[in-house]
Amino acid sequence: MLEKTPTAVAARWLESFSAALALGDISADAELFLEESYWRDLLTFTWNIETMEGRNAIVAMLEAMLAGTRPRDWRVKGEAESDGAVIEAWFTFETEVARGEGILRLREGRCWTIFTAMTELKGFEEKTGPTRPLGLKHKAERNRETWLEARRREKKEMGHTRQPYCLVIGGGQGGIALGARLKQIGVPAIVVEKNARAGDSWRNRYRSLVLHDPVWYDHMPYVPFPDHWPVFTPKDKMGDWLEMYAKVMELDYWTSTACIAASWEDEEKVWTVEVEREGERITLKPKALVFATGAYGPLRRIEVPGAADFRGEILHSSDYSDGRKYAGKRVAVIGSASSGHDVSVDLWEAGADVTMVQRSPTTVVRSDTLIELAFDIYSEAAVKRGITTDIADMIVASTPFALLPEGQRELYGTIRTRDADFYERLGASGFALDFGDDETGLMMKAYRTGSGYYIDVGACELIMNGDIKVKSGVEIASFTPAGLRFEEGEELAADAVVFCTGYHSMHEVVAQIVSREVADRIGPCWGLGSGVRGDPGPWQGEPRNMWKPTAQEALWFHGGNLALSRFYSKYVALQLKARMEGLATPVYRSPKRNDGPGTVGPHQEERA
Amino acid sequence: MLEKTPTAVAARWLESFSAALALGDISADAELFLEESYWRDLLTFTWNIETMEGRNAIVAMLEAMLAGTRPRDWRVKGEAESDGAVIEAWFTFETEVARGEGILRLREGRCWTIFTAMTELKGFEEKTGPTRPLGLKHKAERNRETWLEARRREKKEMGHTRQPYCLVIGGGQGGIALGARLKQIGVPAIVVEKNARAGDSWRNRYRSLVLHDPVWYDHMPYVPFPDHWPVFTPKDKMGDWLEMYAKVMELDYWTSTACIAASWEDEEKVWTVEVEREGERITLKPKALVFATGAYGPLRRIEVPGAADFRGEILHSSDYSDGRKYAGKRVAVIGSASSGHDVSVDLWEAGADVTMVQRSPTTVVRSDTLIELAFDIYSEAAVKRGITTDIADMIVASTPFALLPEGQRELYGTIRTRDADFYERLGASGFALDFGDDETGLMMKAYRTGSGYYIDVGACELIMNGDIKVKSGVEIASFTPAGLRFEEGEELAADAVVFCTGYHSMHEVVAQIVSREVADRIGPCWGLGSGVRGDPGPWQGEPRNMWKPTAQEALWFHGGNLALSRFYSKYVALQLKARMEGLATPVYRSPKRNDGPGTVGPHQEERA
Repeated sequence: MLEKTPTAVAARWLESFSAALALGDISADAELFLEESYWRDLLTFTWNIETMEGRNAIVAMLEAMLAGTRPRDWRVKGEAESDGAVIEAWFTFETEVARGEGILRLREGRCWTIFTAMTELKGFEEKTGPTRPLGLKHKAERNRETWLEARRREKKEMGHTRQPYCLVIGGGQGGIALGARLKQIGVPAIVVEKNARAGDSWRNRYRSLVLHDPVWYDHMPYVPFPDHWPVFTPKDKMGDWLEMYAKVMELDYWTSTACIAASWEDEEKVWTVEVEREGERITLKPKALVFATGAYGPLRRIEVPGAADFRGEILHSSDYSDGRKYAGKRVAVIGSASSGHDVSVDLWEAGADVTMVQRSPTTVVRSDTLIELAFDIYSEAAVKRGITTDIADMIVASTPFALLPEGQRELYGTIRTRDADFYERLGASGFALDFGDDETGLMMKAYRTGSGYYIDVGACELIMNGDIKVKSGVEIASFTPAGLRFEEGEELAADAVVFCTGYHSMHEVVAQIVSREVADRIGPCWGLGSGVRGDPGPWQGEPRNMWKPTAQEALWFHGGNLALSRFYSKYVALQLKARMEGLATPVYRSPKRNDGPGTVGPHQEERA
Repeated sequence: MLEKTPTAVAARWLESFSAALALGDISADAELFLEESYWRDLLTFTWNIETMEGRNAIVAMLEAMLAGTRPRDWRVKGEAESDGAVIEAWFTFETEVARGEGILRLREGRCWTIFTAMTELKGFEEKTGPTRPLGLKHKAERNRETWLEARRREKKEMGHTRQPYCLVIGGGQGGIALGARLKQIGVPAIVVEKNARAGDSWRNRYRSLVLHDPVWYDHMPYVPFPDHWPVFTPKDKMGDWLEMYAKVMELDYWTSTACIAASWEDEEKVWTVEVEREGERITLKPKALVFATGAYGPLRRIEVPGAADFRGEILHSSDYSDGRKYAGKRVAVIGSASSGHDVSVDLWEAGADVTMVQRSPTTVVRSDTLIELAFDIYSEAAVKRGITTDIADMIVASTPFALLPEGQRELYGTIRTRDADFYERLGASGFALDFGDDETGLMMKAYRTGSGYYIDVGACELIMNGDIKVKSGVEIASFTPAGLRFEEGEELAADAVVFCTGYHSMHEVVAQIVSREVADRIGPCWGLGSGVRGDPGPWQGEPRNMWKPTAQEALWFHGGNLALSRFYSKYVALQLKARMEGLATPVYRSPKRNDGPGTVGPHQEERA
C-alpha cells in the first residue's frame, strides 16, 4: 500500500470534517478530534476570540454555533508538512457570511489543534490589488470634486455634520493600525490622540529608547517598513513613521484631543462622548467606542511614605526623558523590568550614579539570543524562506495559549544552557533572576502580567561590572529627606528617585472616562487567568477583554505591541464592520474553569 | 540528437562570450554577434549610458574598454525563454569594480541584443535586508548619541560646517528619488526645492490633475505604494506621498530654497553654488551638481503680438490651477497636448466656454487602451506573474532605442484598429490627429520631443460632442482687445487665454544658473536625434544628456516621469558614488551618425 502524503491525510481529514459539519452530525465530528484537542477561533464560528479546550468544549461550541455558521468549502492550501508525529496543514473555508483561513495539526489521524480565522466578510472585501480604486473618473463631469476637495470636505464633516461609526481613543500604534484597517474596510472612524502629533507617544519616551523587537515583527498593516529599515527602530524614527502612516492612510486623526467622558445610551444604541480638541469641546455620537490608550492603563506608583520630606526629585518613568540633567547626581531607580533597566542605562550614560532597587526577581534574556531563538519566523532568513510577517502572524496565532508554556519552557531551557556564563555572572552581581513561576520565561510573563522582564541591550553588563548598582530583594520603608530607607533599616542616598513601576490595567481608563461601574463589570484587560501572581484565575485561554466583545456592549479594547496591534486590528475591524452592516454576530463564550490547562500556580487571588 | 533548451543555448553563448572576453580575443567575440546587433550598457563597460549599434560599434567599444573592465563570472539567471526565433535570457556578471545584470537576446545562435546594467559597486553595496543597520548599539556607552540627536546634528552641519558631495537642484520626484538613492549608497547630498513643502511641484498644478500613468509604473524606489493605492494617483495625494517619502528616507531636503548661481572651479574640482534658503544666502561647495528641475526647463510661451491690447487675462498652464473663476467666461486654450486637454476639461467642468486652439496635429490614445496594451508588464496581472516593477524596468531598458519604433508602430496599428470608431469620431470633430512622422505614436513622441500627445481621460468625448470647441490648423496672428485673430483673418472672442505651450529644454536652466556658455556646450536635454521636427540629428541612440556624464564635468541631469526617475536615479547614484570613492570611471562614447537606425525624417535642422 502506498503511504499517503501529509497533504492527502490532511485533505482526507478536512473532507470528513466538512461532511459531518454539513450534515450537522456533531458526534461524527467529535470522533475526528483527540480528547485533548484545541480549537482556536477568530470570529468565524464564535464571533469571538475564543479557544475551545478539549473535545467536549469543541462539541459544546458546535452545538451552539454550527447551524448559524454554515461552514463549507474546506480546502487544503499548499502542501501539508509532517515531522513524523504531527501533520500540519493550512486550509481555507467559507461560512455563510465570511471567508476564512486556518491551520490544522493532526496526531494519529485526529485533530490535535485547529485554528480558524476570518479573512474577509463576503460583499465587504477590502479594495486592494486588482480591486483597488481607479482614482479618477475617465469622464469629464461638471463640478467634479477632486481628491483634495473630498478629503477636505470629509475632514470638515466628520465629527460635526456626520458622525463616525467608531471612535478610537488613543492614537499610538494600536489606534493608528486600527484606524487604517477601518478606513480600508469602510468603517467611518475618528482616532483621537491627546498629543500634538501622531507618533508622539513614542517621541515623548526617554531619549535612548529603541524598540526591543526586531523590524520583521514590527511592520504596520498595508505599508511595511522598507528593506533598509534598521533592525531595531529608534523611538523618534518610529514616531515619524507613524505620523507619515496616519497621513498616507488618510485617517481622520484628531491630535491634541482628550477624551473627557463617555456614556452609553442603551435605547438608542449610541455613545455620547465628550472630547476636547485643541481647547474646543465637541460631542461625538459613535456607535462603537474602542479604547486603544496603550498596552497599559494609568501610571502605577507604589505608595512610599515620607515623600513630602524628600528633598530630591520624584518622578515616574513616563515623565523621564533625558538623563543629562542628572549627571553627577545619585539616582535611585525603583523597578527592574524593561523601563527600570533602560532608565538606569540612560542615567549611567549621562554620568549619573545609579542604584536600581529590585523588589522582585526579573526574567532577563540577551537580545541576540532572543532574536536568534525566539524570533526565527520573524527574520530575514524567514522572509527568504517565504515566511512573510503575515504568514508568521498566522503561525503564532495558531498555537492555543494553553500549549504555549510547554514550548516556552523548552526554549528557556535552551537559552539558560546557551547563556549559562551570562546568567552566572548576572546572578553573582546580586541581581535576582527568575524565569517565571513555571520557568516559561519572558513571553508568558508578557501575556500573563505584562511585567517583570528585560531584554538585555546593554544594562546587564553595567550591572555585572558594578557600574549600575543593584539593591535586590528589599522593600522600601519610606523616603528620608536624603533618599530612601529600606525595611531592614539600611538607607540609600539619592538626589532623585525614578519609579519604573509600570502601569495599571487599561480598564482603569474606562473607569476614568465611562464609569467605575462599567469598568468593574468589564474587569481587567490582559492576563490569561494562569493563576500566577498578578494573573488570577479562572483560566481564560485568551487574553482578557482584548480585541473582542466585552461585558459592555459596543465597548472594545485594542492594543499591544506593534505585532499585536497589527494582527488583531484586522479582527477588531471585521467585528465592527459586521455590526455596522447589521450582520448577525452571535457571540459564543466557552465556559471558564479554574483548573484550565494553562493554569500554573498557587496565586488564585482575585486581581486588585 | 537532443534539442538544446533555450537556457542551455544561452549558457553556451555566454560561455563562449566570456571565454573570448577573458582572453581579450575581440575578433572571436565579434563572431558571436549578428552584424545588426545592439549592446546597451548602463555603466558596466562604458561608465556611460550608451548603446553600441552594430557589430563594428561593439568591437570598437570592446577595444577601448575591455582591458579596464575585466568582466567575468557570466551566468544565466533563471530559465531562458524562446519564441522560436529569439532566445531571451537574463544573466549576471561581474567587472573589476562592480556586479552587473543583463538581458540577452539571441537569433540563430548569435547575439541580436545585449543589455548590461550595473547592480552595485563592490565594497559599496547598499545596506539592505540581511545587511540592514542594527539601529542601536547593544552596549551602554557614555554620551551616546541617539538617532534623533544624530539627525539633528547632521541637519545642522550639512551645508554649513560640512559640505555635501552632491547638490541636487529640484525636489520633485526626480530629486527625491535621487536623494533617496544617494542616501542609501552613502553619498552626502542636499536636495534644494524652491517650494515650501516637498510635493508642492504636484500640489501646485491645476486642480483636477491626476497621474496619467498607472500605479505599477509609478512606484518610488525603496517604499512602493501600498496595494490599496489607486490606479491613477491624484496630484495632491502624490504630493503628500512625496513629502512623507522625503522625510522617511531622511533626506537633507531644503524647502523654500532657490538656486541662484553656480560656477565650476576646475582647479579645485568643486562647484560654488549660491542658494537662498528662506531668505538667507548660503554658499555651498559640492563636488557634483545635479539638475533635477523637472522633465522640462523654463516655460515656453509663443510670441503673439498685441498682448498689451488684450483686455482679458493671459496665463501659462503652469500658473493655471482652478477653472472655477472662469465659470461663464470664454477661454481660449492654446495648445492641444496633455496640459491643453486637461486645462480645457477643467475649464468646461467649471462652466467655462472653452475653445482649444490646435496649431499642429496631436497623438491621442484612450487611457483604457493604453493601460491594457502598452502597460501590460506594469499591471496587477504582471505582478501576479512575478513581474515586479523592478523586473519590468529591466525588460523595458533592455530594448535599444533604435528598435523601439518597430514595436511601437505595430502597437499603434493595433490601437488604431481597435479604436477605429473613436478616431473616426474625433477626426470628424475637426481635431487634427497624427501618430508621429513614422506612425510610432505616443511614447516615441515623448522620448523625441516630450510633446504633442494626450492620453484621453475624458477630453475627447467633450471635443467630439462639441462641448469643447476646437480651432485646428490655424496660426495665431495677434491678440485683439477682445480675443485672438488668426492668420486667415477670423477672430475668436475670449475673456482669458491660457498658453498650454509647454516648456523649454532643461539645459536652459543651466544657462540661467551656470552660464549660457556652459549650457550651449552641453546642448539640449532629451531627444534621441531621430531627425523629426524638434529632435534633430545626429542620431544619439539614447536620450541626450540625461542621467550620464555631460560636456561639463560634474554637471548632471536627472528626471523624467516617475518611472524614469525611479529607474535612472540608481545609475546616477552609482556614477556619483564611484567618483566620490575615487574609482576610475573612464567614459566611453560611441561615435554618432546622422543615418543611425533610429533616424526618421527630413527634419535635420539644428535644435534651437
